[in-house]
Amino acid sequence: MSEYLYPQNDILFSLQSIARLNRLAPYLEDDIGEDLLEAVLGEAGKLAEQVIAPINTSGDKEGSRVEDGEVFEAKGFKEAFQAYSEGGWIGLSGAPEYGGQGLPSCVATAVNEGVQSANLSFSLCPLLSLGSIEAISHHASDVLKDRYLPKMLAGEWTGTMNLTEPAAGSDLAAIACKAFPDGVDANNDEIYRIKGQKIFITWGDHQMSDNIIHLVLARLPDAPVGVKGISLFIVPKFLLNEAGEPSERNDVQVVSVEHKMGIHASPTCVMSFGDQQGAIGYLVGQVNDGIKAMFTMMNNARQGVGLQGLAIAERAYQQALAYAKDRKQGMKADRSGRAAIIEHPDVLRMMMTMKSQIDAMRSFIYIAAVENDLSQLATDEQKNKSIARTALYTPIVKGWITEQAQEITSLAIQVHGGMGFIEETGVAQHARDARILPIYEGTNGIQAIDLIGRKLKGDDGAEMKSLLAEIEAELNELSAADLQQNVEKTLAALGHAKKATETCLAAMKEDATLGTGLAYAYMMSIGYLIGAWLQIRAQSSLQDNQLMNAAQKHSWTHSANFYCDHILPRALAYFYTIEQGQASVGELAETSFIR
Amino acid sequence: MSEYLYPQNDILFSLQSIARLNRLAPYLEDDIGEDLLEAVLGEAGKLAEQVIAPINTSGDKEGSRVEDGEVFEAKGFKEAFQAYSEGGWIGLSGAPEYGGQGLPSCVATAVNEGVQSANLSFSLCPLLSLGSIEAISHHASDVLKDRYLPKMLAGEWTGTMNLTEPAAGSDLAAIACKAFPDGVDANNDEIYRIKGQKIFITWGDHQMSDNIIHLVLARLPDAPVGVKGISLFIVPKFLLNEAGEPSERNDVQVVSVEHKMGIHASPTCVMSFGDQQGAIGYLVGQVNDGIKAMFTMMNNARQGVGLQGLAIAERAYQQALAYAKDRKQGMKADRSGRAAIIEHPDVLRMMMTMKSQIDAMRSFIYIAAVENDLSQLATDEQKNKSIARTALYTPIVKGWITEQAQEITSLAIQVHGGMGFIEETGVAQHARDARILPIYEGTNGIQAIDLIGRKLKGDDGAEMKSLLAEIEAELNELSAADLQQNVEKTLAALGHAKKATETCLAAMKEDATLGTGLAYAYMMSIGYLIGAWLQIRAQSSLQDNQLMNAAQKHSWTHSANFYCDHILPRALAYFYTIEQGQASVGELAETSFIR
Repeated sequence: MSEYLYPQNDILFSLQSIARLNRLAPYLEDDIGEDLLEAVLGEAGKLAEQVIAPINTSGDKEGSRVEDGEVFEAKGFKEAFQAYSEGGWIGLSGAPEYGGQGLPSCVATAVNEGVQSANLSFSLCPLLSLGSIEAISHHASDVLKDRYLPKMLAGEWTGTMNLTEPAAGSDLAAIACKAFPDGVDANNDEIYRIKGQKIFITWGDHQMSDNIIHLVLARLPDAPVGVKGISLFIVPKFLLNEAGEPSERNDVQVVSVEHKMGIHASPTCVMSFGDQQGAIGYLVGQVNDGIKAMFTMMNNARQGVGLQGLAIAERAYQQALAYAKDRKQGMKADRSGRAAIIEHPDVLRMMMTMKSQIDAMRSFIYIAAVENDLSQLATDEQKNKSIARTALYTPIVKGWITEQAQEITSLAIQVHGGMGFIEETGVAQHARDARILPIYEGTNGIQAIDLIGRKLKGDDGAEMKSLLAEIEAELNELSAADLQQNVEKTLAALGHAKKATETCLAAMKEDATLGTGLAYAYMMSIGYLIGAWLQIRAQSSLQDNQLMNAAQKHSWTHSANFYCDHILPRALAYFYTIEQGQASVGELAETSFIR
Repeated sequence: MSEYLYPQNDILFSLQSIARLNRLAPYLEDDIGEDLLEAVLGEAGKLAEQVIAPINTSGDKEGSRVEDGEVFEAKGFKEAFQAYSEGGWIGLSGAPEYGGQGLPSCVATAVNEGVQSANLSFSLCPLLSLGSIEAISHHASDVLKDRYLPKMLAGEWTGTMNLTEPAAGSDLAAIACKAFPDGVDANNDEIYRIKGQKIFITWGDHQMSDNIIHLVLARLPDAPVGVKGISLFIVPKFLLNEAGEPSERNDVQVVSVEHKMGIHASPTCVMSFGDQQGAIGYLVGQVNDGIKAMFTMMNNARQGVGLQGLAIAERAYQQALAYAKDRKQGMKADRSGRAAIIEHPDVLRMMMTMKSQIDAMRSFIYIAAVENDLSQLATDEQKNKSIARTALYTPIVKGWITEQAQEITSLAIQVHGGMGFIEETGVAQHARDARILPIYEGTNGIQAIDLIGRKLKGDDGAEMKSLLAEIEAELNELSAADLQQNVEKTLAALGHAKKATETCLAAMKEDATLGTGLAYAYMMSIGYLIGAWLQIRAQSSLQDNQLMNAAQKHSWTHSANFYCDHILPRALAYFYTIEQGQASVGELAETSFIR
């Protein structure tokens, strides 16, 4: 077991100096003052460290259980959720007219980093609630908003997302869950009856809140086939009475809870809707427009999973660092005594492989979060620019960062040697927990295809080329001598990125299916390149930074140098692959695999 | 759950065409005929598929338990071990004078691949026995050999290796377990009393055999400090009576069994020696020579762990392949119906990332195994050549292959999507099981340091340069047009390998501690290069191969092409890192890490 420390200074540095939070200022009624920001993050850090982190390992061990059709979460989770709700954290970036505090989402991102590092299983409940709140905010009628948002923003009710079915995972077009209109209820709201089974429903049931608001994708009887025939419904666990309070139980049941590799304390439910008379649901948005409603919150949700990758990596890194400083094996280089293992160069390599990637990942998380806020808050020409940039960043944030999280959590085990493989040490949990991240909210393969297919091909590479040009211009402007080597290495990689972009565009034009054989390599290479760019931006921002002491600046410089020598070269490997073209994937078929 | 199929054709191809098994012929009394080899592997495959594989998932779920100081293994393991022993498999490469069958070790490797793929937890028990048998064979007195080897080779007794202590993991010099002479026993054998605690003892206790022979490293009272003061002892669970049969219980106890991330069915024990009057032990080899005895079997043991990496990767690959052919998501490229996911290019990429690395790993396993046999069997100038080559190969086999196993078992989960994260699917177990491989038998960091420190620096790079020259000569001789692209790519990488070798040699000469900061990159890069060389050797051997049908040859060709485009470039990334020198690691210290 190790303590979690909320890395407030690193987060503030990433948010202010790298992501340039002040870009939001023109579009905010109230400026986010330094004091406010530090106060908010300070409180969030305390909550994460003192309330949410301590129940992480116990939650992993205990998991959740189903009894009489109800899910019971692990000990201590209900109290922690209550503290979290009462602190007003769910409504931090929510609309003030429904009780939210109206701060930009990127501040919520900084808060959520702490919650997710502290306890990934726990964090998924408010995360899914936030997703539901967002869908309702953007698409539901005012009547539904009034009924549901205040309670959800206050954390009295939680939300879930019900997309996946046994035959419909990545392929949402195959959704078969049914809905049909059935008049109005006592509140005079139009109701639908929902019937069908959903799987992989995160926090699908629990005892932490007074009601659970399920958002469910289903098909009306006359709906077109495919994704254009899917509608979105609110299906509350408890129907609301005339006072708007939870009363009668709706016809929705938890069938079972999955036994998973990780995130044991997050109940992943099989849900059955409408076993009897049909679950009562309320249409959100237009009929057959459910996928669009889902996709409007996709940027947030996918960036949120990228954040989870950063958060779990940070937690694993902290635990490995504590162990590496404490554990003695072998002699010091000068033979003056036994060495802490962090004194051995190969352990330094492992630790800096973790840290330098985490630093780059954090920079990318916050730059994407600020861009996302701009896409929603800006009222001038910045809006469309930020919409395009956010669309481009999102699959890379989700895909690249969650892949790094696999390596980093695995390295944290490795630093522990044999102790890392023993569950009581607690570090293996981070790797097991992290393993879901490349899978949910669209597998990383889907992210890569989104990047190369929808984003790159969609505007003929315009936004990507604009990003690469910006990176090039910024790097070319940096003249400080101590940055030159890193700048040169990154510019060289950038040259390959331009070429790879053309190769991928050409491949996608020639055959949009076959071209996706290059998608993963492209996503990863651009991720690594962005990491180098932001490491250099960090390095160039250090001198003027008031927040960090000399030791912290020293640490960031080492991180940037190491990144350019040890991590950036991976981009070169992927660019090499792309430059070979898609033949070595394109020639494959099922028959290429024998066993 | 998926069935395991022993890939006999691939193994035979690797052993005969790539590893060139016939190199052993001059040194064998009886030639290993094709028929004998196929018969042996055929039987081994059946045993693995039908007896050992079916208890893999149940063993993972059940684990083992301690009751009244005895460990009880999972259901079915005792019966499977009995079948395995009775088949004569443990003694396959054992000395005929003690009841072994005297086949070369590389044949045992081919058998063990199947056992390890079928059930990694199970396979560790005979593996540790084989290690003990080897240590006893090479170092114990004839009296001890006569007492222990026949029963161990017959599988009636198993063996364990007791090295690690709480404060002595990678650092064996810190071993504190004590031994002191205490006269002779009823058989007139000199006895020692052993006192101390050992941890991480694989299959340290169980009910599958009549006796358990612990090999224990301990210090005599007047022993020098460090590794030169450690002696090796046989400490049987049951002392032998005058008839040589197990009788009285020795003073050795299981304290507990670890709760691990994976290999649940393999009991990892904390062992206490000499809680009462001192456990009775028998000296193996010379006093203070225990580490040497351990190191003589290190090549086999470390190559054995590399084999586990191949084996678990193969198992995960087979399961992913079955799922990818079966699972339908999305539409076929021509929109004619729903597609099996293996029809999607990104899934083809994942599957071939697995297969092309597995093919390369298997080639390397068998070439190293044949070289290891030559190092022991050859009676001419080949012997020393093979000793040097085996010493060079071993850390790369262990380190590089077990790293690949992490990626491949993780990809197998990814191919399954959400189902991969559900334990009942069974594929997560492979990743959890595989996670121990980079840790035990010397962490991969230790392997890398062994490669760059002991092996590369030890002969001033002579053996490595000789390997690189051989690879270059072989590639230059290949003139077939369809090989040329792969040959050129690999020769380009080889040019970097020569340069990297000089860089590493220079760094190690300048500072043998700091230089190890490059060790991991060097080990991995050479591994990837060797993979490409052997993929091309495979490709060039296909035409004359009688064993494989056209489809199988087709599959190997795709595998080699994919490897050179997608996997080999990773070597380029590592070479790039090495070419930057060791500064970005060398400048690091504990103070570079803040949290």
